[in-house]
Amino acid sequence: MARVNIGIVGGGLIGRTHTVGYHMMKTFFAAETKDVHLRMIAERDASLARETAERLAIPEWTDDWRKLVSSDQIDLVFVCVPNDMHREIALETIANGKHIFCEKPLARTAAEAKEIADAAERSGVKHGIGFNYRKAPAVQLIKRWIDEGRLGKIVGFRGSFVQDWGLDATGALSWRFRKEIAGSGSLGDLGSHVLDMSRFLVGEISQVAGLLSTHITERPIGAGGLGHKAEGGAVKMGKVDVDDICDVLLQFENGAQGSLVASRLASGKKNHFDFEVYGMKGAVFFDWERPNEVLLSTFDTPNERSGFTRVLTGGFDHPYGEALWPIQGMGIGFGETFAVQMYEMVKAIQNDGSANPNFRDGLRINMLCDAIQKSAETREWVSLG
Amino acid sequence: MARVNIGIVGGGLIGRTHTVGYHMMKTFFAAETKDVHLRMIAERDASLARETAERLAIPEWTDDWRKLVSSDQIDLVFVCVPNDMHREIALETIANGKHIFCEKPLARTAAEAKEIADAAERSGVKHGIGFNYRKAPAVQLIKRWIDEGRLGKIVGFRGSFVQDWGLDATGALSWRFRKEIAGSGSLGDLGSHVLDMSRFLVGEISQVAGLLSTHITERPIGAGGLGHKAEGGAVKMGKVDVDDICDVLLQFENGAQGSLVASRLASGKKNHFDFEVYGMKGAVFFDWERPNEVLLSTFDTPNERSGFTRVLTGGFDHPYGEALWPIQGMGIGFGETFAVQMYEMVKAIQNDGSANPNFRDGLRINMLCDAIQKSAETREWVSLG
Amino acid sequence: MARVNIGIVGGGLIGRTHTVGYHMMKTFFAAETKDVHLRMIAERDASLARETAERLAIPEWTDDWRKLVSSDQIDLVFVCVPNDMHREIALETIANGKHIFCEKPLARTAAEAKEIADAAERSGVKHGIGFNYRKAPAVQLIKRWIDEGRLGKIVGFRGSFVQDWGLDATGALSWRFRKEIAGSGSLGDLGSHVLDMSRFLVGEISQVAGLLSTHITERPIGAGGLGHKAEGGAVKMGKVDVDDICDVLLQFENGAQGSLVASRLASGKKNHFDFEVYGMKGAVFFDWERPNEVLLSTFDTPNERSGFTRVLTGGFDHPYGEALWPIQGMGIGFGETFAVQMYEMVKAIQNDGSANPNFRDGLRINMLCDAIQKSAETREWVSLG
Amino acid sequence: MARVNIGIVGGGLIGRTHTVGYHMMKTFFAAETKDVHLRMIAERDASLARETAERLAIPEWTDDWRKLVSSDQIDLVFVCVPNDMHREIALETIANGKHIFCEKPLARTAAEAKEIADAAERSGVKHGIGFNYRKAPAVQLIKRWIDEGRLGKIVGFRGSFVQDWGLDATGALSWRFRKEIAGSGSLGDLGSHVLDMSRFLVGEISQVAGLLSTHITERPIGAGGLGHKAEGGAVKMGKVDVDDICDVLLQFENGAQGSLVASRLASGKKNHFDFEVYGMKGAVFFDWERPNEVLLSTFDTPNERSGFTRVLTGGFDHPYGEALWPIQGMGIGFGETFAVQMYEMVKAIQNDGSANPNFRDGLRINMLCDAIQKSAETREWVSLG
Repeated sequence: MARVNIGIVGGGLIGRTHTVGYHMMKTFFAAETKDVHLRMIAERDASLARETAERLAIPEWTDDWRKLVSSDQIDLVFVCVPNDMHREIALETIANGKHIFCEKPLARTAAEAKEIADAAERSGVKHGIGFNYRKAPAVQLIKRWIDEGRLGKIVGFRGSFVQDWGLDATGALSWRFRKEIAGSGSLGDLGSHVLDMSRFLVGEISQVAGLLSTHITERPIGAGGLGHKAEGGAVKMGKVDVDDICDVLLQFENGAQGSLVASRLASGKKNHFDFEVYGMKGAVFFDWERPNEVLLSTFDTPNERSGFTRVLTGGFDHPYGEALWPIQGMGIGFGETFAVQMYEMVKAIQNDGSANPNFRDGLRINMLCDAIQKSAETREWVSLG
Repeated sequence: MARVNIGIVGGGLIGRTHTVGYHMMKTFFAAETKDVHLRMIAERDASLARETAERLAIPEWTDDWRKLVSSDQIDLVFVCVPNDMHREIALETIANGKHIFCEKPLARTAAEAKEIADAAERSGVKHGIGFNYRKAPAVQLIKRWIDEGRLGKIVGFRGSFVQDWGLDATGALSWRFRKEIAGSGSLGDLGSHVLDMSRFLVGEISQVAGLLSTHITERPIGAGGLGHKAEGGAVKMGKVDVDDICDVLLQFENGAQGSLVASRLASGKKNHFDFEVYGMKGAVFFDWERPNEVLLSTFDTPNERSGFTRVLTGGFDHPYGEALWPIQGMGIGFGETFAVQMYEMVKAIQNDGSANPNFRDGLRINMLCDAIQKSAETREWVSLG
Repeated sequence: MARVNIGIVGGGLIGRTHTVGYHMMKTFFAAETKDVHLRMIAERDASLARETAERLAIPEWTDDWRKLVSSDQIDLVFVCVPNDMHREIALETIANGKHIFCEKPLARTAAEAKEIADAAERSGVKHGIGFNYRKAPAVQLIKRWIDEGRLGKIVGFRGSFVQDWGLDATGALSWRFRKEIAGSGSLGDLGSHVLDMSRFLVGEISQVAGLLSTHITERPIGAGGLGHKAEGGAVKMGKVDVDDICDVLLQFENGAQGSLVASRLASGKKNHFDFEVYGMKGAVFFDWERPNEVLLSTFDTPNERSGFTRVLTGGFDHPYGEALWPIQGMGIGFGETFAVQMYEMVKAIQNDGSANPNFRDGLRINMLCDAIQKSAETREWVSLG
Repeated sequence: MARVNIGIVGGGLIGRTHTVGYHMMKTFFAAETKDVHLRMIAERDASLARETAERLAIPEWTDDWRKLVSSDQIDLVFVCVPNDMHREIALETIANGKHIFCEKPLARTAAEAKEIADAAERSGVKHGIGFNYRKAPAVQLIKRWIDEGRLGKIVGFRGSFVQDWGLDATGALSWRFRKEIAGSGSLGDLGSHVLDMSRFLVGEISQVAGLLSTHITERPIGAGGLGHKAEGGAVKMGKVDVDDICDVLLQFENGAQGSLVASRLASGKKNHFDFEVYGMKGAVFFDWERPNEVLLSTFDTPNERSGFTRVLTGGFDHPYGEALWPIQGMGIGFGETFAVQMYEMVKAIQNDGSANPNFRDGLRINMLCDAIQKSAETREWVSLG
């Protein structure tokens, strides 16, 4: 197999998650990833960069991402920084002929995303994007069933990705609340996962109507990430200019319809991503809070015994069963989705295939996010070409 | 207490359900309903009328509803027939000065509903409408919590009422599939309950965007109700001109937002009505499939122990606990909602109060249904005055 | 049909529940119960007796149960009083040639129960006992599946009936805490339901080992029923001489094995009765908190799609579907089990059949309770003949 | 930190799981495990040994476990082979002064286990045992709550660990069905986890009564592990001499009581380990199928809002939250329990502390298993000193 040396740009939560995914990949898919190595990490904060590299036994570190994306040592770059930096880093990575994996959303706007996706496609590098939930075995199982026709023609989809940390009005005005950096709020951060899932399972979306609202309109300026509180006494406040809640109607090209909700104001919900898909012959339900379960209904079951069957995933009869955990009910966690995601990115490189999802998908999600924002502003339906 | 003699127009499923509700009311609210009596039933099919009356020990029957709504023996009329007959029966009932309770939706269109509601209000009779799910103790408990401010300002609502019997393409073209009789499909039949619930718990809806679709466009002509199959060999087919599936975005006057879905094509769902309400301090979830449970989250619970608490209703600390079942977890079923509903209608008469919900609510639901249909046709948002 | 005039002895919670069941029976099974009438109520407290009769439109009342059980007006007597009075009332009822339905447990001890059961069987009257949970449609559906062999040979059973009201140490020393009146504590009150269910679904129990414990050993003396608190200041305490918690191992005659737990000290559990039955081909789970659901697993389902299917009961394909609610998911509550129970008792009289369960079953449960208490005292297994 | 070089004896499923745990440990607890290295693997089958070592980048391999446990390169040995080999390998490992971690159960019998535990304690090496479920964050959270007194005095415990693969009568007579190798069946394999959990959370068990049964009494002789089928045509059958199902009553020293069930014949259950703990002030429920959830009830919550709260684990407020996944609801899987387990074993070595659980715990579990088997044979309660 070809050598694939990996560099990660960004030492925060999501960068760290990719290192966990890397190590899990190396054990779960050991034979096929022997020649894959995590070689370098770039992080603006030099001491964090060094400390991370030492801690995780990553051979090299830098506080200048340009060094990483131009290094001869690196074949594949993971971009794990806030959304406003995606474009610059991605374009330079691609210009250097490196394969690239970018965290979602691909960019702040469809225009930015198009620039990135076009560059990647022109250059011929492999490009992937971090819609990791697709890689849960349960989701792959659902995809298998849909492709086999087990649910019949799909007619309905509903999804939600909701969290509650935004309810803390003392939480700092982190980058996730600033349009200039994030592009949008709950829509791009959470709704993008639901949009990706709906395209993956149902098909292309042709028209959207969206409702966005912001209920906590200013927050304390200061350091702090996901819900971290500003420290100290008197607090200077800054304006929140992205959405807290986002509801969307979805019209699919194939005639199916549906809706999604994304929210940071959903009391009691932590990292709650669920969806249901309804077809003319059956239906499925999935909830990431119970990542090793799929609920399946098939309409031709005799009424006396029909209903949703709770299928526990894992084991040889389910996707990735042989590689991950060979017994149903042992159970994957968050890390396994990153392990599979990285493995499939590497495979795309080694086999000269396409990553799935890739920047073309990422662009579509950004187009949808733009359309939803436009719809919410104009109170009109917005069609996509 | 004043005498309240009841007549029921319609001997089908829903008329029968009201007789169950009547008998349960007479035991659960015995002291207060001693002077309430079910006196007469009207049903077009004379033999069914007689048989029903005999079976249920209803003293009188008729095959002519006009006799019932004009009888001196009758103070309160329950209208339990298909939607296209509501207007005529209601107007004559009101003209006769009888109190009236009408099954939902109030009419096929807002125009019809306005005629009915205006007549009722002008006449001074008491008028109620059959959104029975409001009367579940769990729903009343949620309403109490919202009114107490336990959830804070409400910002989000999502609801669904979905069934699967429509998936059977051999099911007859019953009146529920014909716009001329029903007014709409899943929207008016199921979605109306969700709309009512959202107004009850969140507030008035000011704007809607809707998506409707019909996936089984013709069905066998013939007798048969809810999913009954046409009998015999060669089958003549008729056109379905109402919606199978309905997705709606909801903008509330108070700034909250949400969505609903109604469907007859939801494999595995039987009579599935669920909803969630999100506020700035807490959230609730309810599902009629588990009618004695409410899930409650309060955001100020320390994170270590926060989450949704599954509260079993029943007993003295919950609505109707003393009247219905005095121990948590004994559990109500469908009938109890009809018992409470009839009891509150009777109380409105005896205390010269207002029934809740009433025809004004019913009209609003019909206006919303019309607006949603218009929105789906025009692909525009529709505002309500 | 033969006239069946009913008298109820006891005006407390359980007597009242039978009146609800009566009225529901009269609507759900109207045609077959036209000649069944609730005629009289007996309650020691004369004013409660009169008030109850008036409230529920029961034609006659008495404060002397002997008058009821000897009245020419009465064909069938429901015994709804504390356990220590069952024997005397039952024997006199039977001596008067009346059919009899007794609340569970049949008596305080197997010796008492034997006297009652023998008298009933000798006399030829019909006799039934109030293990009402057997009558839930979901339980009857499970029984059907087991009888059809759908689960294969049964090998395992586990059941629990647990509540939490006993945790309130200020709750009064009601009769349920006194061996002299109740016979036992959680065992006879709650465990008896689990024992009955296990015999109904699995078969006869041949050997038991039990563990009983009492953790709140004295309680305030005073009036008050299920968890009611003693009022007033200084409180006189009395000894609790029955079990709070009861765990039992069960050896069935057919080789199956299992366990049960009954408890009044189960925080968070209100009226929680659940059980699971495991066979060589499948398994089921039921929980009264969700009375319209059965979970069913069949081992021959391909592994990829296997798991527990949540079947919602109701509708024509399920037991009592035609009589009760004709659509899956409308849902029964506690009252329906009493309606069916009374209906089946009446049918046994009208058709000269056997009630099921009857006093022979009640005796067996008392024998098991005695054996479990003996086992707990001696720390030995106890066999039943 | 002191160097800790690890060797694993056994290249099967459980050995492989420890390598996953190792790599996850190295990322989750990176700073503290920089000097911990997986150096060698021993596996009887030389080609499997070499292939495993190459695949997982383990520097050395051997087909002779004696070389591993005597190597200067190795400080800590993981014993991951069938139960009949534990004694010999453990004793030699200890004799060589190596720290040791042994898979559960510690041995086939208490006598064997005592020999091992005594040797370990005499030698002064650190010793741990693989009851990995203790290490789930949710379980540690429960332990914290119990230690804080949040549940009050514990009075009840019920646990189950049940699977269904044994229902396949064509499954080969693997070592898990042979007493000579495994010691017992469902009892030692699954029940041992429940026993360990009950001791961890409730306290020491003083007396047991057990029921064991075997329903598939012979199976095809042949290769194959967990439920693998024998290949080929005519099949030679061998006797199963261990239990398929095991029910046990538990008397704890502190007055609590409870029960457990272990089974390989539980249709629909895959790797189902659940338990509940009841105290005088509250209760908890946990189910490994939903490893990131704890249900918590506290009795002093006002009745109107009481019930079980579903707490999602993860994040800074929960055990290991900082090291594992910092956001509630991201979610751990099976591997994380092995990562934590190995980390804590390493910490015990580095800090000269005790592993928890250790061989003393393992011995106690073997004593309990022996007592349960004796009780089942004699149908008597068996006390433990």
